[in-house]
Amino acid sequence: MTNTQVTHIQIDNYGPWTVTPEPRREVDLQTLQSRLFADLSQLFGNREGYVFFSRFDNMIAVTNGISLDEHALVQESVANRYPVTMSLSVATGTSPAEALETATTQLQNAGSAQDKSRRQILRGQTIDEEFRTDEDVQIAHFDVNDATEKYTDRLNEFDTFIHIEQGYAELMRYMREAHESLSFFVGGDNVIAVCPDLGTAEYQDAIDHVNEAVEVELKVGVGRGQVAQEAGMAAKHALEECRATGEDVHLDF
Amino acid sequence: MTNTQVTHIQIDNYGPWTVTPEPRREVDLQTLQSRLFADLSQLFGNREGYVFFSRFDNMIAVTNGISLDEHALVQESVANRYPVTMSLSVATGTSPAEALETATTQLQNAGSAQDKSRRQILRGQTIDEEFRTDEDVQIAHFDVNDATEKYTDRLNEFDTFIHIEQGYAELMRYMREAHESLSFFVGGDNVIAVCPDLGTAEYQDAIDHVNEAVEVELKVGVGRGQVAQEAGMAAKHALEECRATGEDVHLDF
Amino acid sequence: MTNTQVTHIQIDNYGPWTVTPEPRREVDLQTLQSRLFADLSQLFGNREGYVFFSRFDNMIAVTNGISLDEHALVQESVANRYPVTMSLSVATGTSPAEALETATTQLQNAGSAQDKSRRQILRGQTIDEEFRTDEDVQIAHFDVNDATEKYTDRLNEFDTFIHIEQGYAELMRYMREAHESLSFFVGGDNVIAVCPDLGTAEYQDAIDHVNEAVEVELKVGVGRGQVAQEAGMAAKHALEECRATGEDVHLDF
Amino acid sequence: MTNTQVTHIQIDNYGPWTVTPEPRREVDLQTLQSRLFADLSQLFGNREGYVFFSRFDNMIAVTNGISLDEHALVQESVANRYPVTMSLSVATGTSPAEALETATTQLQNAGSAQDKSRRQILRGQTIDEEFRTDEDVQIAHFDVNDATEKYTDRLNEFDTFIHIEQGYAELMRYMREAHESLSFFVGGDNVIAVCPDLGTAEYQDAIDHVNEAVEVELKVGVGRGQVAQEAGMAAKHALEECRATGEDVHLDF
Repeated sequence: MTNTQVTHIQIDNYGPWTVTPEPRREVDLQTLQSRLFADLSQLFGNREGYVFFSRFDNMIAVTNGISLDEHALVQESVANRYPVTMSLSVATGTSPAEALETATTQLQNAGSAQDKSRRQILRGQTIDEEFRTDEDVQIAHFDVNDATEKYTDRLNEFDTFIHIEQGYAELMRYMREAHESLSFFVGGDNVIAVCPDLGTAEYQDAIDHVNEAVEVELKVGVGRGQVAQEAGMAAKHALEECRATGEDVHLDF
Repeated sequence: MTNTQVTHIQIDNYGPWTVTPEPRREVDLQTLQSRLFADLSQLFGNREGYVFFSRFDNMIAVTNGISLDEHALVQESVANRYPVTMSLSVATGTSPAEALETATTQLQNAGSAQDKSRRQILRGQTIDEEFRTDEDVQIAHFDVNDATEKYTDRLNEFDTFIHIEQGYAELMRYMREAHESLSFFVGGDNVIAVCPDLGTAEYQDAIDHVNEAVEVELKVGVGRGQVAQEAGMAAKHALEECRATGEDVHLDF
Repeated sequence: MTNTQVTHIQIDNYGPWTVTPEPRREVDLQTLQSRLFADLSQLFGNREGYVFFSRFDNMIAVTNGISLDEHALVQESVANRYPVTMSLSVATGTSPAEALETATTQLQNAGSAQDKSRRQILRGQTIDEEFRTDEDVQIAHFDVNDATEKYTDRLNEFDTFIHIEQGYAELMRYMREAHESLSFFVGGDNVIAVCPDLGTAEYQDAIDHVNEAVEVELKVGVGRGQVAQEAGMAAKHALEECRATGEDVHLDF
Repeated sequence: MTNTQVTHIQIDNYGPWTVTPEPRREVDLQTLQSRLFADLSQLFGNREGYVFFSRFDNMIAVTNGISLDEHALVQESVANRYPVTMSLSVATGTSPAEALETATTQLQNAGSAQDKSRRQILRGQTIDEEFRTDEDVQIAHFDVNDATEKYTDRLNEFDTFIHIEQGYAELMRYMREAHESLSFFVGGDNVIAVCPDLGTAEYQDAIDHVNEAVEVELKVGVGRGQVAQEAGMAAKHALEECRATGEDVHLDF
């Protein structure tokens, strides 16, 4: 059974900041957002967590093994180096979607995302050391079959992007609704999903659904671990297995 | 009439690199990709262009006013500072989609995205100085009505993200098919579209379509300029007008 | 005759900020400072200027060809992405030292470096386009003879560093006092000096002085140009000439 | 008694790389070097270590508490994101200078800094967990008395820099020769020294020496800890004590 620790990261009052006193240059906002994400990738990643950029002003992290004190240090480090601050809310659950629900609710209870006086909230609960197991995190790494041959080398880049994007939009919605999973586009033709305890049948179901709905063919490697880094690396190796064998789904456990 | 100069940016042989000799850590790939995008935002942005991350391994830039020599310098600067290189292909057209089509074709003619020996291609044509006008670039800046109140402060972050993502997926596909435009999610609830010479009716049509298809309500500000920075900033100010007046569409020209 | 345009960059009220409300973590300060310098290197470098980190909270740039409007854009971009702001003061002169004297005085006249209310000053004068020449900037690139063989591969790293540092401290002081030049350590065993119109004799004099004073043997390549980038690259090629021929001084003009 | 764990960081074959096939643009080298240092600051800093840029192509870190496996991960992360690789050599000792001597020797034994085939060396020994104590690391944080009033607000920036630099050059040499300490300029008017078990008399001696030799007046706060972060933060607080009381030397233990 999985027990995912999820952190909801929210830049404080970011929308208003981007247009005060007047709209800031888009290239600076894009630079700020992508560097903040890169820094969080390293800050959580060096503690074996994963962060996903999702909407950039709101990000979602898998933080099993990372204490509230470490969250506070990450929060402080960002405040020391950026013109904006961020709030963090941590929760756990056997379903990643459920854990995030708790995390977001805790944050909403502290005030609106656009509340000027709500800054640097840090709330929530981590998993007690004694209850952590090697199956706490389950990560699935999807990619698109023959994306380079079928799309990148044949269509114009935007039409390639449309195919990838329609596949992602369908997958992320379906995995959420049918399988309580949180799926994130991570570049190229890759999607990483944080999942509860799913098996081959559920992944095959998701792949079939996306293929029927938008005609994008996926395959997936799945890994488990005590922390995101371990589960995610196992998933990558499982995906290499799919590439070698032609399987649609390969579970590394 | 618009005359958009579009650059297709492609990291050379990136997919194979990410798994050679074995899969590289995801946090490092995420850091690399987002920092490369941040750098390109600054490198093109300091020359008044816009870059969109789209798939990260393939990016699309609006580069009116940026010469091939300047493209070469950007290419060299990245090669000097990253473990990967990138190819650039530039083309122009009255329709952004058509310009990109040309740019991608030029790149494909030079070899596959996963061709080991195809590196640092630089191809294409820019607009001659004498033919440049104040209406060359048209940019539309969309956002979601009341996103904070309706989504961010009420739903869990992933369900908010699903709404934004479904809206984006529908908009980017429709704007491409119906209106030859290239639309990019840029964080939060914002989408920036690079458009041919469209008017109020076409934007209202797109907004209505998205509302009917996926029940996401958008508004849009539109600007024009000789370069992306100018058109994009005008679009931001036009969007502020929508916020002030309640209009769905505001053209700053 | 040279005509160097120099910009004094000063982070506003930085010292107090680093200890308010209590001392900030050194690793975050180091990260902030070095990234700000990296960004300024790119922001000025993309406009063919050079920036030197000198004290990090105060930096010195050679900005021939860069207008006050472009300085304002750099200033705004930093304010959009950092928790601190910076002031810029620009001046010109046939001697770099004299130009800097004017630039610093202009900034001091606007208030103390630790004045809480003095923020984002932008002052000064650039060189009118009509008066710019191919000899405006003269740059000398020094390095230490056989540094790897004599120091790096033989001494412990700190003792190597002591030799390099004593050489630099002597050179920077002497070049300032005897030759109105501004010399900056740029890593490894390299020092870049921004000079007035000096010839072989003056450079040989400086090399001899350092050798006598602290027994560090230097060589130097010197270049000229309309902008820093051009002069600096010519200096690098001239230094390669010294490496090839064994000369102490090579002027690329 | 202190027991400092020191890591010598060396970019592999960097000098030749910077001029192959011809000299690379200085702004790109400066950006690469300062970002690599910033990344190492975070990579070691997130594990409570300190890194000093010293010569940028060779850096020195205090790494108490950081295992060889963690060093390997830092090494891999850099190789994944930069066009250069680096070698790491770790050693320990009651004197920081002696520890570094061992570390550098280990690296030199593996090959020259400019050996093309010597890449990504990782050698050395860390302190066994059972032998670690709260007094392993002693850090001294020096600054210049009234630097803003006496220099920054009165002299031109280069002349201010000369004073700071002469003070640093004298201090770093003297602390090495007389007190087995490694001192690093860290920006502004600040120098951080990694020391063996020194007391008030030794620090007063160093301050007096620098004052006599180059007329730069220093004060110093000194802290101890099991790791660099702890000792360094204690030193900062001790320096605040000096500011409050007017003491030359304040030991936080």
